[in-house]
Formats: sequence, structure tokens, C-alpha cells
Amino acid sequence: LTKARFSGVLAPVITPFDNNLMPDKDIYVRHCHWLTEQQVGLAVFGTNSEANSLSLEEKSTLLAALIEGGIDPMRLMPGTGSCALPDAIQLTRFAVESGCAGVLMLPPFYYKGVSDDGLYQFYSEVIQRIADPALQIYLYHIPQVTQIPLSIDLIDRLVKAYPDNIAGVKDSSGDWSNTQAMLDRQWPDFRVFCGSESFLLQNMRAGGAGCISATANVNPAAIYSLYANWQESTADEKQAELNTIRDIFQSRPMIPALKSATALCARIPDWHRVRPPLMQLNQDMLKELETALDAAYFNMPGLAD
Amino acid sequence: LTKARFSGVLAPVITPFDNNLMPDKDIYVRHCHWLTEQQVGLAVFGTNSEANSLSLEEKSTLLAALIEGGIDPMRLMPGTGSCALPDAIQLTRFAVESGCAGVLMLPPFYYKGVSDDGLYQFYSEVIQRIADPALQIYLYHIPQVTQIPLSIDLIDRLVKAYPDNIAGVKDSSGDWSNTQAMLDRQWPDFRVFCGSESFLLQNMRAGGAGCISATANVNPAAIYSLYANWQESTADEKQAELNTIRDIFQSRPMIPALKSATALCARIPDWHRVRPPLMQLNQDMLKELETALDAAYFNMPGLAD
Repeated sequence: LTKARFSGVLAPVITPFDNNLMPDKDIYVRHCHWLTEQQVGLAVFGTNSEANSLSLEEKSTLLAALIEGGIDPMRLMPGTGSCALPDAIQLTRFAVESGCAGVLMLPPFYYKGVSDDGLYQFYSEVIQRIADPALQIYLYHIPQVTQIPLSIDLIDRLVKAYPDNIAGVKDSSGDWSNTQAMLDRQWPDFRVFCGSESFLLQNMRAGGAGCISATANVNPAAIYSLYANWQESTADEKQAELNTIRDIFQSRPMIPALKSATALCARIPDWHRVRPPLMQLNQDMLKELETALDAAYFNMPGLAD
Repeated sequence: LTKARFSGVLAPVITPFDNNLMPDKDIYVRHCHWLTEQQVGLAVFGTNSEANSLSLEEKSTLLAALIEGGIDPMRLMPGTGSCALPDAIQLTRFAVESGCAGVLMLPPFYYKGVSDDGLYQFYSEVIQRIADPALQIYLYHIPQVTQIPLSIDLIDRLVKAYPDNIAGVKDSSGDWSNTQAMLDRQWPDFRVFCGSESFLLQNMRAGGAGCISATANVNPAAIYSLYANWQESTADEKQAELNTIRDIFQSRPMIPALKSATALCARIPDWHRVRPPLMQLNQDMLKELETALDAAYFNMPGLAD
């Protein structure tokens, strides 16, 4: 059974850790409910989720907890890429069996300078071994982190070989010309998401599907509002407002800043924690973040209930 | 109980895959016995082992198979680093409990631009949670792959905080001035390995401990012979001979070339296989490799028994 493909705004959901640095399921499930109430989908296990700092078992356990906790799997696009083919297959299969609407898949990122043929082979193995039309893969292009770009030619080969399974792409390169080049190909029912809401209006105007953005963790309602009303006359103004909030986070270590803003708004100190090699904000940075958020009248309504 | 530290030559052991791309335990154990007979230690699960293309469970299973298969754990230095702290802890603990003489530990390599503080914290968590003086960590500096350099200052902090656990380093940067800078610090009983036998003689003359080199998979006896006889008058000549063989592999995709040379010498076609994103040599490349090996009178005596 082929699934409807995503459009809209998704948050690469941040992951809370307890004082032993283990994921806190209860806080996590509550946070995901809050996000879906703000109309955003859940791209759990993304870069901003510290997904590669989690074990395979931790990810499976968290995904199961979300579904048991009442999250609709049709709102879920878990990150399931891995350097290791068996890990990518195992988590992807679990996501499909759990009814997730899609998966966001990094390329294997340990070896550098690998060929398009090798990357094609990796995705092919995953698709062929899972062999299920319910598998909807969104390719994850984030070359500044992985150092492994997903070229337009590679995507073209994958779309043509597996039109039922290759559903779209998240372009986190920050290079609009690359996003535009993907849109220009007009692959059938292929969903192009930008990796930051800074490009959301531009992407919608060019025929894109929405955005999957870190700051959708903290500013979901406003980002969704631009997505839902991009054809209105207020759109450029909304985009400018989103950019102001985004700048607060983008000018700081992004993941710790997102988590600390959430800690402050939710009044849950656990949210400050990150796993090494990331470092949580120090006291000075935290103070500066608070000041910046206050100056922007920033809050996350409904989160602290 | 603190353990004696490594000196000598180690091979980052290549990993054989069956026709379903799964590790082949029997071929693996046999190959490791052949390597130890050539006097080299076993840095299993290194870059040339495709370690990051293996799941945690596959690595644990292979390590257990080696020990059950009669490999002395005091010859073993498994790679146990990972992007995910719990994975690094689990495999490192298993290696210590299995009696391995040491572990070779990559830094977490997904996030780029991480701080020395964050890397320090990562290694600290591993050491403190295992809390066993039998844990002997060899730090793995391979910035061209990980994009995460281990600075001299970071190593200095780790050595001073955990002198019983930080045993040495493998410098795969290919930058001799960096290796020299590590040696210059003269940390007590700290073992500096170069990541290629091209630097073996230079490293031994400067007080280094040996090398951990990809080509020790295919040319172990000759590399060991230079290590054991580096003070002899023949040393420079031996080094030149090693370089000739190394060039054959270094001028090709290294891992597929090592595996194909092994497949040819062992007459075991399984050895040709790699996991994606790597690609095995095509027919033309294989022919050229054979020609180059023949021209160098290359063989791997005792392997095909």
C-alpha cells in the first residue's frame, strides 16, 4: 500500500535526557503531543534530535513510546539513516511496520569521497530488503554535516528506479540554487522540503512541500501559519517575523539553544541537557539567550501545562 | 589491574562478507589466525575493517568469535568508538570484559566543529562509566575521515586526567609534524603509532611504538620485520621495499584493493565484497591490480592453506 506523502512543517524533535544522560520517555511523549497540537509533523531522530548520539535500541524504544503514547504514526517521519546498512534496515523496517508515514534517511557518513554508485547501492539495499510500497523515503541532504552530498543525478537515479519508495528530500544545504534545481526536475509527486524556515516562503512559491526545521521545535505555530497562509498578502511580513526568531537560535549553538529555550518555557530543567560531544549552554550564554528571547517577546504557549 | 601496553605492528583487519553481505565468521577467524602468525596484532573494527558499516551486534559477535576461535585477547585492539555514547560504552565494556589488551577509539564524528570540551566529556563519560584500570584506550586521530581532529591539547588533558586509561594514539593524519608533536610531549608510557608503515622507520627512530596500518593486512611479515629490525643497517632498504608495496594499494581505492588482493591470494572470492557505500573493484581495476601485484612479485604466503 502506497501512502500519502507529506506536506507541511515538521520539527526535528529535540530529545530530553535525564540526569544519567538517558532519554526521558515521558517528557518526550508530552513534548511531541504539544508539537502536533501546533500542527507540525514529527521528524524525530534528526540532526537536532541528536539522533546519531542515540543507540539503535534507544531510537526503537522512543518510537514505540510515541505510538503507545497516542501519537498518530501518520505524523511521524523518523530519521533512520545510519553508517551501517543493517542498522539503517532495522530501524527503517521498524518505522514502516509501526505505520510511520515516512522516514528521513541520511546517507552513510563515515567514509568521505564515496561514489554516487556506492550511495545508490546503499539506498537500493535498504529498499530491496524491506520491499514494501509503504516505505516512503525522504532523502536527507545536509552536506555541511555529513560531508556526503546527495547529488541531483543520484536522486534522479533513485526516483526513476524506485518511484514508489522515493518520496522526497530535505535540503538542509542552505543553498537555494540546489533546492531550486531539485524542484526544476519535477519528479512526479516528489516532495521538496527546505531545511530551514528562512526558505519556506520561497520554497512554497516555487512549488515545494514545506520545511523541516530545527526552530519548528520552539516556534511551531508561527511557522505553520506561514505554511498555511503563504498565498496571503501577509506572507512576506510573516516570513520576516520568523527570520527574527530564527536568528536568535542560529546565532548560537543551535541544539543547546533550542533545548534551553524549551527548558525555560516548559520549566523542565532536564531539557537543558545534551549528550557529548555537544555541550549545554553555560551560565553566561543562557543569560544572553534569555535576554534575547525576552526582547523578542518569545514564548511557547501551552507547553508548561 | 593495569595492562601492559602495545608496541609493534597491528592490522586494522578487513572484514569478509558472504553473498548476503553478512560477515563471515569462519573466514574472519582463519584470517586473524594467519595475521597473528605473521606477528601482527589485530586492530579489528578499524576504518579498513568497514567497522562503521557494521552493527554493534555484528561487532560483538565477531569479537566473541575470535576469542572462542582461539585468538589471544592480548593481541586484540578493537575499534570501539561511535557517534553514540551508549554504543561506545557498550562495545568498550565488552572488549574490556573479554580481556582485550586495548581499544582504539574514534571520537564521535557526526557533528562537525565540536569543541575539545565536548570531546573530552565524551571520552570522560566512557572512562568513568566503565571505571576499570584494565581499560586501555588508544585514541584514534584520522581527521581526513572523521573531520574531528584530536588536538594535542585534548590528548594532554585526557592523559593527565586518566593516566591509567589513556594508553596511546594512532595518528592516521599522514602529517608527520603532528606525530612528532605527540612524541615530543613524552607523556609517561604513552604509545604513539603511525597510521601507515610509510612512517614506521621515522616513528621508531623518534621513540614511537610502531604502526597500525591498512597494508599490514596484506604485507604483515615484511612490515613486522622492519619493526623488529629498525636498528639494523638494512632498515632504510626495508622501508623502501615496504613503500613500493604500499603504493600499489594507496594508489587505488584502499579497502576494495586490500580485500581483492586477499581474495586472489587466499583464493576465496568472498573477500572481494565490500558493504555499500564502498564499491568493490570492477573487472578492469581488478586486472590492473593483479598486474601490479605480479610485477612486484607480491604474495601472501601461508594464506591459502
